[in-house]
Order: sequence, then C-alpha cells, then structure tokens
Amino acid sequence: MTEVTVGYLAELVGGKAVGDREIRVRGIAPLNVAEPDHISFVRNPSYKDAASASHAGALIVGPGLEFNRPHIVADDVEVAFAKIALHFYPQPRAEEHDIHPTAVVDPSADIASPVRIGPHVVVEAGVRIGAGSIIGASSVIGAGSVLGEDCVLHARVTLYHRVWLGNRVVLSSGVVLGADGFGFKPDAKAEDGKRWLKIPQVGDVVIEDDVEIGANSTVDRAAMGTTRVGAGSKIDNVVHIGHNCVLGKDNVIAGFSAFGGSTILGDRVTCGGHIVTAGHLEITNDVRIGGNSGLLGDITESGDYMGYPLQKRTRWGRTFYTFDRLVELKARVRDLERDG
Amino acid sequence: MTEVTVGYLAELVGGKAVGDREIRVRGIAPLNVAEPDHISFVRNPSYKDAASASHAGALIVGPGLEFNRPHIVADDVEVAFAKIALHFYPQPRAEEHDIHPTAVVDPSADIASPVRIGPHVVVEAGVRIGAGSIIGASSVIGAGSVLGEDCVLHARVTLYHRVWLGNRVVLSSGVVLGADGFGFKPDAKAEDGKRWLKIPQVGDVVIEDDVEIGANSTVDRAAMGTTRVGAGSKIDNVVHIGHNCVLGKDNVIAGFSAFGGSTILGDRVTCGGHIVTAGHLEITNDVRIGGNSGLLGDITESGDYMGYPLQKRTRWGRTFYTFDRLVELKARVRDLERDG
Amino acid sequence: MTEVTVGYLAELVGGKAVGDREIRVRGIAPLNVAEPDHISFVRNPSYKDAASASHAGALIVGPGLEFNRPHIVADDVEVAFAKIALHFYPQPRAEEHDIHPTAVVDPSADIASPVRIGPHVVVEAGVRIGAGSIIGASSVIGAGSVLGEDCVLHARVTLYHRVWLGNRVVLSSGVVLGADGFGFKPDAKAEDGKRWLKIPQVGDVVIEDDVEIGANSTVDRAAMGTTRVGAGSKIDNVVHIGHNCVLGKDNVIAGFSAFGGSTILGDRVTCGGHIVTAGHLEITNDVRIGGNSGLLGDITESGDYMGYPLQKRTRWGRTFYTFDRLVELKARVRDLERDG
Repeated sequence: MTEVTVGYLAELVGGKAVGDREIRVRGIAPLNVAEPDHISFVRNPSYKDAASASHAGALIVGPGLEFNRPHIVADDVEVAFAKIALHFYPQPRAEEHDIHPTAVVDPSADIASPVRIGPHVVVEAGVRIGAGSIIGASSVIGAGSVLGEDCVLHARVTLYHRVWLGNRVVLSSGVVLGADGFGFKPDAKAEDGKRWLKIPQVGDVVIEDDVEIGANSTVDRAAMGTTRVGAGSKIDNVVHIGHNCVLGKDNVIAGFSAFGGSTILGDRVTCGGHIVTAGHLEITNDVRIGGNSGLLGDITESGDYMGYPLQKRTRWGRTFYTFDRLVELKARVRDLERDG
Repeated sequence: MTEVTVGYLAELVGGKAVGDREIRVRGIAPLNVAEPDHISFVRNPSYKDAASASHAGALIVGPGLEFNRPHIVADDVEVAFAKIALHFYPQPRAEEHDIHPTAVVDPSADIASPVRIGPHVVVEAGVRIGAGSIIGASSVIGAGSVLGEDCVLHARVTLYHRVWLGNRVVLSSGVVLGADGFGFKPDAKAEDGKRWLKIPQVGDVVIEDDVEIGANSTVDRAAMGTTRVGAGSKIDNVVHIGHNCVLGKDNVIAGFSAFGGSTILGDRVTCGGHIVTAGHLEITNDVRIGGNSGLLGDITESGDYMGYPLQKRTRWGRTFYTFDRLVELKARVRDLERDG
Repeated sequence: MTEVTVGYLAELVGGKAVGDREIRVRGIAPLNVAEPDHISFVRNPSYKDAASASHAGALIVGPGLEFNRPHIVADDVEVAFAKIALHFYPQPRAEEHDIHPTAVVDPSADIASPVRIGPHVVVEAGVRIGAGSIIGASSVIGAGSVLGEDCVLHARVTLYHRVWLGNRVVLSSGVVLGADGFGFKPDAKAEDGKRWLKIPQVGDVVIEDDVEIGANSTVDRAAMGTTRVGAGSKIDNVVHIGHNCVLGKDNVIAGFSAFGGSTILGDRVTCGGHIVTAGHLEITNDVRIGGNSGLLGDITESGDYMGYPLQKRTRWGRTFYTFDRLVELKARVRDLERDG
C-alpha cells in the first residue's frame, strides 16, 4: 500500500489523467468513506453528486464525465478499479522463507525458497513446492503433490496425493482436491453380501495456472486419467467438480454448482450459481449459463442458456413467465371446455 | 446436569406444577426411554397412552391434559421442553483458563480469562478473545479477528483476518468466515492474456451476538465494507452467504441455502432448506420462504412465499398442483383442438 | 501391486481365462495407455478395434468377444474390472502401529494395534479405535467416539463426541459427523428478547459397516436418539444428512443431496445428485430417484422416480417434455380462444 501518484495509476490502467498528475494517494475506497489520500471511483453518471460530495483526493471515471478534482478517465471504470485495487492490495506471495516449527515436512519434499509454510501444516513425501508459495495453517499436502510458484493455500486446505497445481493457484479454506471420485458398481452376485463394489480411483487432479477455488469446494480425482481445471478458471464456494471432469480455460463458476463425473467444459464458459449437470456431457466454448439451471445434455452452440429444462435464455424467460401464470392458463383451458 | 425439583423447573418455564413439587429429576428424555429420575414431555394428546406407560418421574404437558403423576402444565410444551433441556444441557462455556500447549498463539493476541483453546489451534497477531470462549481443536483465527464472550468454535473452524464475532456466537466444524468474495472482472484487452481480473476483497465480516452457524457453511468477506449476519440468527449446515450480504436479526436459514452477493435480509426471515437467491436483492421483515425456492427479485411485503418462480405460498400450492398435472392439461388442450 | 497371473485374476472374478493363463500382469489400465504388463478391459464390442491396437498384455472382455491375446471372459466386465482394480489398489489399512509424535491422544483412549494416526490428530477422552484403522492428518475424534476395525479417515475429518463407526468406514477429507442438528424453537414471550430457543441436540450418530462418505459431507447428531447411516451405504461429496435421519442398508447417494431431519430411507435406495427432501418423510426399499429431484412426501412403492414435483420416472419424462414446450402450449390455448 505504498503511496503513488495519480499519473502513475493512470498509466497502470491505460487511462488519461486529468488535473494534477502529481497528487499522491495511498489507498482506494468507495465515495462515501474515501479520505483525501484515497482514490475513489464513479461507476456511472448517477453517482455524480456522490462524487462531488466525496472527500476522495482523486477519482476514476468513465468517458464523458468531468470533475474539478484530479481524476483518471478510463474506458472501463470497473476494470480500472480492479487494477488499482490490485495495486494497493496485491495477491500475497512469500517474500521470506519461513517454515513454522510446528509444520511436519517430510525430508523428501522439495521446497523452493522463499516459501511460507504455516503452523501445523503437513507436507508428505515427494511433494514439490515452488518459490513464492504460501501454505496456510493446518493444510495437508499429500504425497507426490506438486505446487507451482506463487500459489496461495489458505488455512485448512487438503490436497490428497498426486495433485498438481500450476502457478499462482489460489485455494480458499476448506477446499479438498483429489478425494476419491464417486464410483461404485452393483455386484448382484456378491458372496459376502456387499452390494456395492468400490471402483478404485487411481487417477489424479490437475489445476492449471491462475485458477482460484472458493471455500469448501471439492475437485475429485479421476477414476483413471485426470480431472482437470483449465488455466485462469475461477470457482466460487461450495462447488463440486466430479471425477474425470475436464474444464477448459477461463471458466467462471459461481457457488453451489455441481458437475457430475466426466463433464467436459470448453473455454470461457460462465455458470451462474447453483448449476447442476448430469455426468458425461459436453459444453462448448463461450457458453453462459444462468443461475439455478439443470443440464441433462450437451451444449454444442455458444450463447446464453438458462433453466431446467435448459433452454436458450430468451426462451427460458418466456417459459418462466408462462409457468408463473400456469394457474391462469389452466383456468383458460377450463373456460374453453365450458364454452365448447 | 444437577438434580432439581419439578417445582424449580415449573418456575423456569413459567408453567404450573401439579402434584408433588418436590420430586427431583436429573435429566430429560423421550417417553419411551425415560427413567424415574427423568422428566419427559407430552407433545399432544395423542401421546397420552405412551405417557401413561412411560417410566418418567414427571411430565411436561399442554393445557387440558391431566396425569396421576407430577407434571408441569405449560402453554407451549415445546418451548418448555427446550428450556428444560437447556437447563440439563447448557451451552458450553470455558470455566477454567486452559490453553493447550500445542496451540500456536501469537504473543500480541489479547486473550481474556477464562478461555479454553484446544490442541493445534492457531491464533494470529492482534486477535482478541473474550472470557468464556472455547476454541476447538485445529481451528485457525486470522490476524486481527475479534471474538466476544462465551463464543464456541467447534473443531476445525477458520476465521480469516478481521472477522468480528459478538458474544455467544456458535460456529460448527468446517465453518469458514471471511474467505474472499467471488469478484472477478472480465478484462477483454488484457495484454498478458489473463481474462479475469481479480477484484480484491478488502472488506470484513461481522457476526453479531447469539448467531449459530452450522457445519461447513461459509460467509464471505465483503469486497469493501462488511458482510453481516444479524443478532440471534441461526444458520444450518452448508449454507453460503455471499460477499456484502447484510442479514438482519433473528433470521433462520435451513441447510443448503445460498445467498448471492449483496443480498439484504430484514429481521425474522425464515428460509426452508435449499433456497437460492440471485444477488443484489432485498427481502423485508417477517418473510417466510418455503424450501427449494429460487429468488430473482425483491420481497417487499411480509408473508409466506415459495417456489421457483417465487410466489405467495398459497398460489405456489396451486401452481405446483397444476404442474403435477401438466400432462393432463396438455391432453385437454389436444382434446379441445380435436373437438374445435 | 504385486504381479499375478491371468489365471489367478480369472478365478478372482469368477471368469474364464482364454489363452495363456500363466501370463503375468502388474497393473490395470485403459486400453490406450496400457503396457504389456497391464491387463485392460473392453467395456463393449465398439471398443474392439481399440482393444486390438492396445499394448495390454491381457484383457477382460464380455461374453461373445474373442481376441488373439490372453483374456478373461466375464459376465459383467465392469464388476470384473472393479474386482481386479481392487486387487491392484486395495483399500488401505494400517499394517504397522504408528502414532505420529505430534498427535494429541488422550491417555484414556483405547487404541488397538496396529493403528496409524497422522500428524496433528486429536483423539479425545474415552475414544476407542479398532485395529487396522488409519486416521489422517489433522483429524479430530471427539470424546467417547468409537471406530471399528480398518476404518480410514482421510485428512481433516471431524467426529464430534459420541459418534460410532462400524468397521471399514471410509470418511473423506472435510467430513463432519455429529455436529448439532438444526433445532430452534420460536419463543414469542422471551423476556430477554431472544426469539430462537436452542433445542439441545443430545443424541448421537451411528455409521454402520462399510459406509463411505465423500468430501465435505455432514451428518448431524440426533436431537435425541440416533442419526443412522446403514451398512454398505455410499455417500458422495457435499451431502447433508439431517438430525434423526435413519438410512437403511446399501443406499447410494450422489453429491449435493440434502436430507431434512427425520427422513427415513429403506434399503437399496439410490439417489442421483442434488436430491432435496423435506423432513419427516419416509422412502421405502428399492427406490431409485433421479437427480435434481425434490421430495415433499413419502414414497411407499419401490420403483423409479424423478422431478419436482416428484413423479414416477416415465411420467416425469412426459411432464418435463411438456414443460419444455410450455410456451407452445400457451400459444395453442390462445389459438383456441381466438378461434372459439
């Protein structure tokens, strides 16, 4: 959170500084709580009065807005905001090598430097951890797992054995990667009376670069082969990725979504909260699925979808509207029958 | 679980003792397993025979029921039951100061006395913990977090940094408070090819007095500002409260419900299990939402609601009934077409 | 993963060895990655070409398929596959007694030998653990809990006090057994202004033999009495079993399903993912419920069901099909009105 000039920030976001470029700010804050050493942001013209009343020393604004105080004009205020916020609150990385004495690290583990390993962490045999990574308290890294550089595992994360993380992967507290996939086979003739035969889950999990996974989410290991989450994908809290799913790059999956085993997602798929998919289906690139949807089949065409049954989003809007008036529709049918 | 007289319990629940007030009981149990030193309860008149057959030394009964053994007549048997059960099984609080030697407590933490801190707990810098609080094994309390008095964190709870708990807050195992909210911005022009820009989540979480949160539930920290759960609210297992949600007082939220970011709940809202809300919507006071509902808009009027689309509960009953007979409705339309 | 002959494996699965019974294999792998010392499997005739191209030293095939290399003919290829996979990847059990020095084990605990207890585990007073069991790192076993023989608790599992596990129970990371059930009573007349009275949850949890529970799932303790999961049942990730549920034997429950309090399941019930049940309902034996279903009432007849409202599966297929064309149905009604 070092002090910087407005001119520096304008360059950072590729915007245009208007007024005194040498004004210095030390943080970012919403209009109503910003202090004179803060930069704030005006999402749209309706905030103009709030902006005038704000104590912020500088502003980020969209094109066409003018202010009497130093400001940065940016094409996309929200992107500029995010970039400036990331300047003041960068993703953490280990700057000094620090392994807490209560951590239990197997001597065969290959730990780069600097790495920060918190209290009560367990690092099993053959693990590799890249420079800059941070392992939060009480996390457990199973045998043979590999973490790239600058990964952040918050407190109480579990990686089972042979889970592979790329660089800059962020895992929130309670995440479990590599637990057994759900695979049981009915054995009608079992002599020991045990109906369900366990199918050993002997594959692994790969989480590519720049993936972030939210609290208490789970990604199961493959039965054979690999369960994969592609680079740049962002996953919210309490999401479940079943065994042998393969997610492409830059997907965004909001909370409480569950992907049945062997689901294949393309790239740049966005899922609203609470999506459920049957297993063994395939979703192509550039699909946007609205929240609270259920998928029973493939999506082969890019576009916007929603609902259960899943429909093109505009159609779902009409279905939903009609469903909301289903009682009246029935009454109309009854009227027709009466009149017939 | 000290022995008490029936007279004492009658006063405790504001009921009327009938028969020998000096009879002593040492516990509470259902009719069929109660022993002579137990008090049991008769929920409604249909249990009268079971009550007669019970070995319980005393009974809690509703108005209008009469028994030949000592009993307490209470207006609301279930409330009286809960109060008596709480007498025999009070919420735990630390009575002696006991910090387990394996706990890692930062010297800057301000720990009142008595407090009980279990094995392998981590308490980071600047944490404050009020008297009477209990921290279960392997929990992690992030830097600058504050716990009031008589809080109970069961085993394996995570508080990130700057999470504020009032008094008598109860958190079940696996709860995660203060993980980053889900905020990413598409950056179409990213030069490094990274499509999703992280929006730093720099706000905090406030959990007010007397809140209880169930196992593996998550409350995310605000992007800016505060995610808040109001006093007296009770939250079941596997519930997700998104960033910047503000829940009022005395809400009750059953399991598997998910509140999108910036949802605002009033006071005394009850949610059946498996409610999902889109973000940025507002629910007024004294709303009851039936289970398995989806909310896409505000609720501005108190009352009972249910369904997806969400409707007044009585209307949803008719919609659901009609939907259940949709195949027949279609057949009726076909018949009309044929006859037309 | 010891080397065995094809003849040995044929006997293991009750199949017929064709070709050289003395060929030795050391592992199992899919057709496309199998090496000459692997056995592979041909799920159905369409894989015949892939089988011919495979480097596998031996194959498992269904009746009616013939190959020029050693193979085992099995009635059910998938069952045979699972059995052979289990031979090469058996469920782990403790072979040597090994209690990690960082584990905190109460002196009153009764630990059989051999048992493996990982780093930072907590075993509270009065716990009993049977021979062969493995307790993963950072797990917490509450006072008075009992584990049978050959149980596997992966890393970071919580058992509250008085949780009873049979033999060969497998719990994945993040599982929480025995947290308080969700029981609160509104107390309209509360003098202290606290609206919701906690109902103490003083029952317990029993998990019978051969149950497996997936990552981050929760089973709550009973209010009074017992929450029970019957022998041989298999539960996926992020499933919630409410207090006082009683599940029979050999149930299979896919992920993201939630069972409201006091739900009673018979034996051999299978639930697709994301089933939600209201509490206090009963499901008989041999019921199969499709994914994404909601249950509001009992199921008294065996068979296949699906949907919300829940219907017989074939009927739900028709309802769903009709719903998907609801917009057209409305248009047909409008046409009828116009023509009338």
